[in-house]
Amino acid sequence: MASDEWPKSEKTIARRAFDLAYERECAALADEVRHMANRMASPDDVWEIHDFLGSKRKEIDEKYDYRYSVLIFAFARLLGEGWLEESELAGLSDDKLAKIQFLAGMADQ
Amino acid sequence: MASDEWPKSEKTIARRAFDLAYERECAALADEVRHMANRMASPDDVWEIHDFLGSKRKEIDEKYDYRYSVLIFAFARLLGEGWLEESELAGLSDDKLAKIQFLAGMADQ
Repeated sequence: MASDEWPKSEKTIARRAFDLAYERECAALADEVRHMANRMASPDDVWEIHDFLGSKRKEIDEKYDYRYSVLIFAFARLLGEGWLEESELAGLSDDKLAKIQFLAGMADQ
Repeated sequence: MASDEWPKSEKTIARRAFDLAYERECAALADEVRHMANRMASPDDVWEIHDFLGSKRKEIDEKYDYRYSVLIFAFARLLGEGWLEESELAGLSDDKLAKIQFLAGMADQ
């Protein structure tokens, strides 16, 4: 199976892994925002949260791109950043997994 | 004293009242953000905080306009919205106070 073809069974696995990573990253972000919110001291600290969320939103919007043409890259990044584990991609073709692992490894260097 | 002239003593009173209102409004906003942050449940709730802060920032940036040419209007609004009390403007000229009270009253109707 070529890495640009996504049969239905792989789409299901991909969607689940993608959503799982998104939920994890948002949950971690929510923790950070809660932490910032609970230690605000000066009036302007509230704008720091706004700036922080603005930059995170841009990063996350760009990262979570579910087009099949770029999904290999998205998974490599999520793996490299620790939002996904390899086992959560089990069921994708060997070719796709090899590419994802290779790209994730490149990003680590 | 015409309402478009601000002697030094009035500038001091105005600056203090203006900063006090800003601090109060930011503190209330911080409370609201803390409350939202502590009851986030789903991944997307974090973007609700970002949207909320974006709209508040726009409103507050527009409201806290410290140009002397529009300060009468700013104080009228802050009075009308409860971020300032009349007693905190004591020391401004009678003419300015009358205009501020009149404009604040108009906004209430």
